[in-house]
Amino acid sequence: MTLLAVGTVAFDCVETPAGKRDDILGGSASFLSTSAAYFTNVATSAVVGEDFPKEHLDFFASRNIDTTDLCRAPGKTFRWRGNYLTDINVAETLATELNVLEAFDPKLSNTSCDADILVLGNIDPVLQLKVVDQVRSPRLIACDTMNFWIEGKRDELDHIIKRVDLLSVNDAEARMLSGEDNLVAAAKVIRAMGPRVVVIKRGEHGALVFNEQDGIFAAPAYPLEKVVDPTGAGDSFAGGMMGYLARTDAPLDPDRLAEAVVMGSTMASFAVADFSLDRFRSLESAEIQQRFRDFSRLTGFNAAAADFLG
Amino acid sequence: MTLLAVGTVAFDCVETPAGKRDDILGGSASFLSTSAAYFTNVATSAVVGEDFPKEHLDFFASRNIDTTDLCRAPGKTFRWRGNYLTDINVAETLATELNVLEAFDPKLSNTSCDADILVLGNIDPVLQLKVVDQVRSPRLIACDTMNFWIEGKRDELDHIIKRVDLLSVNDAEARMLSGEDNLVAAAKVIRAMGPRVVVIKRGEHGALVFNEQDGIFAAPAYPLEKVVDPTGAGDSFAGGMMGYLARTDAPLDPDRLAEAVVMGSTMASFAVADFSLDRFRSLESAEIQQRFRDFSRLTGFNAAAADFLG
Repeated sequence: MTLLAVGTVAFDCVETPAGKRDDILGGSASFLSTSAAYFTNVATSAVVGEDFPKEHLDFFASRNIDTTDLCRAPGKTFRWRGNYLTDINVAETLATELNVLEAFDPKLSNTSCDADILVLGNIDPVLQLKVVDQVRSPRLIACDTMNFWIEGKRDELDHIIKRVDLLSVNDAEARMLSGEDNLVAAAKVIRAMGPRVVVIKRGEHGALVFNEQDGIFAAPAYPLEKVVDPTGAGDSFAGGMMGYLARTDAPLDPDRLAEAVVMGSTMASFAVADFSLDRFRSLESAEIQQRFRDFSRLTGFNAAAADFLG
Repeated sequence: MTLLAVGTVAFDCVETPAGKRDDILGGSASFLSTSAAYFTNVATSAVVGEDFPKEHLDFFASRNIDTTDLCRAPGKTFRWRGNYLTDINVAETLATELNVLEAFDPKLSNTSCDADILVLGNIDPVLQLKVVDQVRSPRLIACDTMNFWIEGKRDELDHIIKRVDLLSVNDAEARMLSGEDNLVAAAKVIRAMGPRVVVIKRGEHGALVFNEQDGIFAAPAYPLEKVVDPTGAGDSFAGGMMGYLARTDAPLDPDRLAEAVVMGSTMASFAVADFSLDRFRSLESAEIQQRFRDFSRLTGFNAAAADFLG
C-alpha cells in the first residue's frame, strides 16, 4: 500500500550533550517519510522555502520518496531551535520560526489523493483536516499532535481526532487530551473520541498500544548506551510503525499492531543514534531486521514458566 | 531453597488519591516476605516494638513465614507517614520515626544462618553488612537500597554492594550511585562495583535487568486502570523476583532472571491494587499464574515478522 506522510520539513538548530548542529535537515515529514520508506512506497506533503537545498531533495529522491507534493514557497523554510541539555529526554524549544509554514495550504496531487495510508504528522489540525478531506478512500489514517494544539486549537483537533483510525501521542499529551492521569483510563477516553487504536509514546520508556479489542501491548525503547540526538524519535517511530502496517493486509489486527510498534521502536532507536537523519543515510534493511529480532530477546520469556502455581 | 528477607516492619500512615489509612502494616520486610512466600520457604529478620499487634504476626504465620528472627524490642514500631497526592508514582515522605529501628542489631537464629537466598531490603547498610556476615553459605545475595544511604553512608554501602550478587535500585538511585545519566552506562558502572546482576526498577515503566552476559531484559509494569497505593511495590517486586529465583537451580541464568523479573512485576501489580498488604490477603496462586501469562500477551510478538527485510 502507498503511504502519504504530511508534516513539516525543517531546518533544526540542535544542541545535545553530544554536540551542536546548525541548520540540519529535520521536521516531522522528513523523519516520517525516511523511516516509512524502508517498508513501503512513500509520498510526502510539506512545504519548504527558497533556501531549501537540492541535496536534501536528492536525499529524499534516493529513498524513492515521491516529493511531487513537497512544494516550494516564497520565503524561508520552517526553523526550529532547541536543546536537550537539562534532560536528554526533554526538548527545550528556544525558537520557532514558522516562515513558509504560515501560509501553507496543502493541495494534493492526483496520485497523493489515492494514498492508502495517510499519516498526519504534527502540524496545525486545520491543515491535517484539509489533507484528510482530499484523500479519496484511505484504508487507514494515523495522526500525531502535540500540547500546543491540544491547548490552542482543541475544537479543530477534536474534529480531526474523530476522523482518524490511529492516534499517537506522548504520555503527557494523552493526559492533557483526556483529563485522566492514569494512561489506561486516558486511552479509554481518547478511544471514545474516535480512534480505534491509541498509541502512547513514552520516550525512553517505549510505547503502549491500546487496540480495538481492549487489548494492550507494551514495547520498550531499545536500551542504548548513547543517545546523540532525540529529535525525530517520535516521527521515526510513527514512520516505522505505519510503514510496517502498510505492508500488511489487516493493519488493525492486534498482532500486526504489536509488530508495528516494535518496528516503530526499532526505527526510533536508530534515529537517535546521530543528529538529523544522518543514521538513516547508512542504515541497511538487514540492520533493522536484526534489531527487530533483538527486541524479542529483550522482552521474550517463557509464559509457561509459572505454571507450577496453577 | 530457603529465603531470608531482612528489612523493616512498619506502621504506615498513607494518603493516596484513593483514600487515607493510618497505622497500616508496612515495611520492606513485610512486603518482601509476603510476596516471596508464594514461591518458597521464607524467614524474616526485622524488629518491631511492644505496640505490634498479634494479628499481624498471625498474618505472617498464616503465610508460613518463619518469624523466629522478627524480634520484639522495648519501644514503638518504626513508623512512616507519606502521601502520593502530587504524583501517584512518587512518595512524599512527611515523617519517619525510627523508634525501635534505631537500636536494631540483627542476631540471626541458627536456622536463618543457613538461608540459601538472602534478600537485604532497604535498611542501613551497616545492618545489611551485619546480616551478611552471619549467613554461612548463601547461594545468592540480593540487596536493595535508597538515595538516603547513597548520600549518607556511601562507604558502608560500597562495602555491601561489593558482596552482593544482585543489586536492585530505582532509576534515580542507579544514576546517583553510578554518576551516569544513561541507564545502560549506569548499570555497567554498578556491575563493575561488584554485583553480577543489576535490576533497575522504573515504577510504572517496569524494570530492566542487566545480566552477567551483558544481556538486557525489559519487563513493563502491568498497565492498571487504578492504582490504590504504590507503597511496597518495589519490595513486592523484589519478593516475587527472589522468591521465583529461589525455586530454580540456576538463579543467575538470563532466562531465569527474565522470568523472575516478570514475576516481580506481576507481584508488584497486585501489591498496588489495595492499601498495605491487603491485596495479598485474598490473592490466590492461580491469579498470579494468570497475570504472569498475561505479561506474555502484553509483550510477545513474532520475532520473524521482519524477516522480509533480510
